[in-house]
Amino acid sequence: MKAINVGLLGIGTVGGGTFTVLKRNEEEITRRAGRPIRITAVADKNLELARKVAGTGPRITDDAFSVVADPEIDIVVELIGGYGIAKELVLKAIENGKHVVTANKALLAVHGNEIFAAAQKKGVMVAFEAAVAGGIPIIKALREGLSANRIQWLAGIINGTTNFILSEMRDKGLPFADVLKEAQALGYAEADPTFDIEGIDAAHKATIMSAIAFGVPMQFSAAHVEGITALDSVDITYAEQLGYRIKLLGISRMRPEGIELRVHPTLIPAKRLIANVEGAMNAVVVHGDAVGATLYYGKGAGAEPTASAVIADLVDVTRLHTADPEHRVPHLAFQPDQVRDLKVLPIEEVITSYYLRMRVEDKPGVLADITRILADSGISIEAMIQKEAPEGSSQTDIIMLTHETVEKNANAAIAKIEALPVVQGRITRLRMENLQ
Amino acid sequence: MKAINVGLLGIGTVGGGTFTVLKRNEEEITRRAGRPIRITAVADKNLELARKVAGTGPRITDDAFSVVADPEIDIVVELIGGYGIAKELVLKAIENGKHVVTANKALLAVHGNEIFAAAQKKGVMVAFEAAVAGGIPIIKALREGLSANRIQWLAGIINGTTNFILSEMRDKGLPFADVLKEAQALGYAEADPTFDIEGIDAAHKATIMSAIAFGVPMQFSAAHVEGITALDSVDITYAEQLGYRIKLLGISRMRPEGIELRVHPTLIPAKRLIANVEGAMNAVVVHGDAVGATLYYGKGAGAEPTASAVIADLVDVTRLHTADPEHRVPHLAFQPDQVRDLKVLPIEEVITSYYLRMRVEDKPGVLADITRILADSGISIEAMIQKEAPEGSSQTDIIMLTHETVEKNANAAIAKIEALPVVQGRITRLRMENLQ
Repeated sequence: MKAINVGLLGIGTVGGGTFTVLKRNEEEITRRAGRPIRITAVADKNLELARKVAGTGPRITDDAFSVVADPEIDIVVELIGGYGIAKELVLKAIENGKHVVTANKALLAVHGNEIFAAAQKKGVMVAFEAAVAGGIPIIKALREGLSANRIQWLAGIINGTTNFILSEMRDKGLPFADVLKEAQALGYAEADPTFDIEGIDAAHKATIMSAIAFGVPMQFSAAHVEGITALDSVDITYAEQLGYRIKLLGISRMRPEGIELRVHPTLIPAKRLIANVEGAMNAVVVHGDAVGATLYYGKGAGAEPTASAVIADLVDVTRLHTADPEHRVPHLAFQPDQVRDLKVLPIEEVITSYYLRMRVEDKPGVLADITRILADSGISIEAMIQKEAPEGSSQTDIIMLTHETVEKNANAAIAKIEALPVVQGRITRLRMENLQ
Repeated sequence: MKAINVGLLGIGTVGGGTFTVLKRNEEEITRRAGRPIRITAVADKNLELARKVAGTGPRITDDAFSVVADPEIDIVVELIGGYGIAKELVLKAIENGKHVVTANKALLAVHGNEIFAAAQKKGVMVAFEAAVAGGIPIIKALREGLSANRIQWLAGIINGTTNFILSEMRDKGLPFADVLKEAQALGYAEADPTFDIEGIDAAHKATIMSAIAFGVPMQFSAAHVEGITALDSVDITYAEQLGYRIKLLGISRMRPEGIELRVHPTLIPAKRLIANVEGAMNAVVVHGDAVGATLYYGKGAGAEPTASAVIADLVDVTRLHTADPEHRVPHLAFQPDQVRDLKVLPIEEVITSYYLRMRVEDKPGVLADITRILADSGISIEAMIQKEAPEGSSQTDIIMLTHETVEKNANAAIAKIEALPVVQGRITRLRMENLQ
């Protein structure tokens, strides 16, 4: 059968991996896809690198627009990243009737609604397995594998850099800044790590998963995003003593009144499988009403794991590229006219449990005052540690775990506690999820 | 769009679950599938039960053949189980041009080659996500999600009953027979638990995964199958002390000379995620050359988790039922003319590590004799425990973990050690996998 011609935009890490894997596993992939899949054009600003990686087979150019306009190309793989030129190229490819495979989570989370509408109109596919959790086929699981379910919530470790840093902070008891430097030296964190450590990358991925899990538009700008830069390793230690681990989770939950969509450091019970996902690995828990909790685990980044997802999409698109659009899985899992306009709730409306750490005067009645405020706010306490005051100090730490409450209610109670004269400074507050 | 009409054969646990979930999530499923999916005929020997579960909507009959012959039916869901009448009905449905969705692992592992050939010839789909690991979309991950990879091995906890029993034996230190009784009382084990505890059910599932992972025919009769009935809880304890857990794994590995396909109790490092899968839960690790190790976890049985998989298949088949067969995923992941005739290797050719427990005379030179035999066979020792002889006894236990070797080599060494006059009785031997 006629080969499928692929145009590759961007020959960096993932582009190189895609090249390598397509070549190494050519026979295996053709046995599955039923026809050869060939990269016949490569565009990169760095022509030398492109020639080095792609060899003499494909046409090599520094003009990406010539690839998306090339009538010989069936599928465009966009691996440039970012919202700028990548958006233009993807929209142009769609306009030219090309199918698109992309690993660009930022682009989809921010401009996905526009891109999928254009693809829908033109009758082409935009596939994006590589955009979330690298080689783990989580998009396929959400869009197809769990299609019987009313998905209730999902929670994922979807940024390897921050999970590596948190694992190291816990293992070695080191502060964030030291571990970040180590991660940069090892290549687990970039020179400018902002997107990772501030939670933005995880929020892009959570936004995409939220849309296809619940049948709602991409709503990245409404996501609540907190990174791990302010995390104190003392809280990792206290959490451990209480039977919890702290992970940076991307969480999305469907509630009748709206969607929760948030990224923040989260305490989770240490006995959950996902609490034991260490280093740069990724994992996502998806809870459906029929299936219960399912978990998907693997490498979330890197040349070949991400290439694995890019090529799986190429095989899917190859199989369906001449099929009637009704035979294809809808881009966002739900039929385009069935996407629901359910809004992301403000963070004050989120329902969760809390870890609270506060410094107090070590004298009688303090605990009674604090627990009274919580009780008056309808917040019950699940566990508590009160440290003995160190020799010669009149101050001590109290750590509390609460049961679930609405965040605005927790905020109000925390403000009241902070206003007590016996409480010193601000209360450290972390969110906690049971994930059951 | 026109509704899809489904004929359901067998309204037991999974049939009832399928009914319930299809009804409860009708809106959500239709929003995804683009058209309603309706059960319009139900066949069961127990008409009363069928009427109770299915209500007055669908046609209810005790003649399953009338359903597979019904011109109104688009898809037949076979939930009868076993190889007898189920095989006849599935083949008849295919002959009548119906697509088939089945949860019947025994049928597919034993007669799959014949069934898929018939379906191929007739141009219909036979979907079987529910046949392996219940609601976990592992078939979809293997057939589609990892299609870029040369899959190297897979290993799964794919029988909830035995995993529940092993978890309880470890937690409570109880012998197999006691825990089996408890599992039966709790409904985790059937009155006749043979298929589960002897590893046959796991072997059916491993056979199916092996075929779609490696592009080989179903070869159930060549699988090596050991259950957990002979497992002594003392070995669970010793394994624990050495940093390992014992799980009943279904393992399949691709080697240039053939396929390993085996089910047996297996020591795995306690720090692996899959070692921490407890109770009746299922999990499968799949290792591909590009993606590395990925893991899929969830409920492997039960009415609604299994219905989740059945209905996901119904959505897939609905989407593609009028599509050209070339647009569909091949039944066994590889194009039908691309299935390779690679044979399952005899167990003697398997390469693995071993846990050995032996009772010996507690006197000088014994350990030297044993380690000499292993060294002469080229088997190196990774770890060892030698227990102190109990007060008043002249005998003690030695526990050894070996590095990898070919099983026939291990067998020969074990026979030589057993022949030593200082070694009492038979050596307990368990296989061990690193799963990295």
